Amino acid sequence: MIAEIIAIGSEMLTPHRQDTNSLFLTEQLNLLGVQVGFKTIVGDSFKHLTVAIRIALTRADIVVLSGGLGPTEDDLTRQATAMALGKKLHRDDKIIAQLHERARLRGSTLTENNYRQADVIEGAEVLPNANGTAPAQFLDTAIAAQEESTKLHRKLLILLPGPPREQKPIFLEQCMPRLRAILPHRAIATRTLRIALAPESQVDAAVAPIYTKFSDVETTILFQVMGEIQLHFVCAKPTLEEAQARVNELASLCEQELEDLVYSADNEPLEAVVLLMLGMRNLKLATAESCTGGLLSERLTRIPGASRAYLGGAITYSDELKTAIARVPRNLIRTHGAVSAEVAVSMAEGIRTNTGADIAISITGIAGPGGATLNKPVGRVYIGLASAHGSEVKELTLTGDRERIRWFSTQHALDLLRRSLM
Amino acid sequence: MIAEIIAIGSEMLTPHRQDTNSLFLTEQLNLLGVQVGFKTIVGDSFKHLTVAIRIALTRADIVVLSGGLGPTEDDLTRQATAMALGKKLHRDDKIIAQLHERARLRGSTLTENNYRQADVIEGAEVLPNANGTAPAQFLDTAIAAQEESTKLHRKLLILLPGPPREQKPIFLEQCMPRLRAILPHRAIATRTLRIALAPESQVDAAVAPIYTKFSDVETTILFQVMGEIQLHFVCAKPTLEEAQARVNELASLCEQELEDLVYSADNEPLEAVVLLMLGMRNLKLATAESCTGGLLSERLTRIPGASRAYLGGAITYSDELKTAIARVPRNLIRTHGAVSAEVAVSMAEGIRTNTGADIAISITGIAGPGGATLNKPVGRVYIGLASAHGSEVKELTLTGDRERIRWFSTQHALDLLRRSLM
Repeated sequence: MIAEIIAIGSEMLTPHRQDTNSLFLTEQLNLLGVQVGFKTIVGDSFKHLTVAIRIALTRADIVVLSGGLGPTEDDLTRQATAMALGKKLHRDDKIIAQLHERARLRGSTLTENNYRQADVIEGAEVLPNANGTAPAQFLDTAIAAQEESTKLHRKLLILLPGPPREQKPIFLEQCMPRLRAILPHRAIATRTLRIALAPESQVDAAVAPIYTKFSDVETTILFQVMGEIQLHFVCAKPTLEEAQARVNELASLCEQELEDLVYSADNEPLEAVVLLMLGMRNLKLATAESCTGGLLSERLTRIPGASRAYLGGAITYSDELKTAIARVPRNLIRTHGAVSAEVAVSMAEGIRTNTGADIAISITGIAGPGGATLNKPVGRVYIGLASAHGSEVKELTLTGDRERIRWFSTQHALDLLRRSLM
Repeated sequence: MIAEIIAIGSEMLTPHRQDTNSLFLTEQLNLLGVQVGFKTIVGDSFKHLTVAIRIALTRADIVVLSGGLGPTEDDLTRQATAMALGKKLHRDDKIIAQLHERARLRGSTLTENNYRQADVIEGAEVLPNANGTAPAQFLDTAIAAQEESTKLHRKLLILLPGPPREQKPIFLEQCMPRLRAILPHRAIATRTLRIALAPESQVDAAVAPIYTKFSDVETTILFQVMGEIQLHFVCAKPTLEEAQARVNELASLCEQELEDLVYSADNEPLEAVVLLMLGMRNLKLATAESCTGGLLSERLTRIPGASRAYLGGAITYSDELKTAIARVPRNLIRTHGAVSAEVAVSMAEGIRTNTGADIAISITGIAGPGGATLNKPVGRVYIGLASAHGSEVKELTLTGDRERIRWFSTQHALDLLRRSLM
């Protein structure tokens, strides 16, 4: 089964806007065992759209049309689909009544253009839109034709409104059950292992001998977050139990092989894993950041409930604040420089004392593009860690631009913290 | 002139990866006055790709193929393009020599597959790739055919390597000059006004009467950053001076109309504008953040050279740190709660004193999903501002999820700071 997704809208043919709905639609179609063979992006042109739909009907079994269902002259998906199929549109009284009701509740009236949203393609089923005015439409040409002979060329066409908050619930709640009823049944299980700060070649070399033996599980190596690798496993079986058992078996073998490189066997972000480990040990964390300027604390506090294990800390961007808040002795900075192993340790120890935290982590470095010295290049970063067991420091030499250096600094800090808690 | 961009690669038909090259390509083509009429995304299938190219040749004047030029069996763009055009491929000795030289420098040898990268479509010009092995190809069918009659169906085909760091320089340095020489000359000027925290309807109502009078300038309202509107002006004229004069005239009129809503008339981010204003007044800033957890300081320190105006500050996530670092009296928190106008002001005043800053800004609020109380819903945020002129506080009731509330809190804090510096 091959699907084609057609995204309709001239704004997606500018340098400023991209089709993103198709990622969600692809994920859902894949769960049904349907591969997306083509994506087409076309502007609000009747001719271009009609041709695009005709082409899709020659090469795909399922054609998903995203957008172009609104009330304006530019919303041409209904007319173009009808034209491409050689079918008529009829105006649906029930939809008109709903449009009137919706307008009445909002204290507005309908213009002639609004009625276009009530145009339904011959044989299509109307799928109500709880979050907008334009309903979706689902057309099974086999049913529309009511003739056995046409089943040879059976096509499914789905017309969806473009805004994600309208499209997603319609697709999940109304299209997926219909597709599930039509397509051969498969139960899908997935599992994701997350790995921080390991090279792809090393990870792949370790696990390829394992996953290649699981020909019934599809293994993908993903890079969703900088400095992370995700091993994504998908398996389709007649029952969910069988599928789940296979992905679990493979995930466990890979986890054993990769040992402590795997920080989550359950697709959790690194920040959440660290906070969970702190919480389980009833430990409180504080941070002191220089070159990352708050990125580490920002990442930790993305997680709801972070306050259970995270107290807060300091952004000691200036040398004065390193002394005032993180209690770094002034002559330590004078002697070793603000970017040094000694200052990193002192920042961690100082913020730990000043906040009463059990563990403290510090980052000081040169994120660039300026700031390099004779001995310290852009990308030189020190991570300090202080706890009741003493202090340690890690020297890094990172490459890339300011954003990348800042991100990797926090990634190393979180991973150092994780390893210290193991 | 209509272009079609075909992105080739099965990974872009998964839920995990998207074509992003086309945004860059569209921007560049638009500068030449070429509109992108279609984008197609196709997998590594010879049949699918050949059909996609044939279709593109029927509906576009310029066909840009992105990806599929590597050395593997999956890299089929050269063969498919030749097939679609009915042209032959020939193996180019000069490219083979370069491949050998490159392999020699890396201490590796060529396999049979590598030679595929030396296959050139009949009549195509080879464009060297400084950052990778696969050269690009530029084919003008009018020149390839050498016949006057074919100019009626003159097509330009451009085959580009997929990796952005290979594709971008080739397109900028080698394709753009060739396209400029072929296409009718136009000079393009652009200008962007940035506006924070104003509703689109208000901005559009204010400026629509102005920009609609400039029929030679294309005006677009963009939403690239949450809580921001960008007014983007583009004008094409025979000379750059004429084009620039028109966008400047329109931008100035819009800026006058929008008054202090416009924070940058030169497309700078809000953080950079605030830091510039502080620097010009020789003022030092400190921050104290609770619910935003460092997002404000992180945004400020994204800007290189932020240290000239930004000292740093505190993440006072716990009540204890509000007292320890931001010097908030304990009973102020007890009386009014940590999320209150009184605590926001005290945080700003305390961090200002503790750091010796000229201006300090604080954020305390409930980002959710938990933490709401009877009197304070999720989304209630207080921004405090303290300077030599005294203190002020702003109460916000924001909607949306944790990420949105945190982002808008920092957006309001930066805009409050900007207005206080005007």
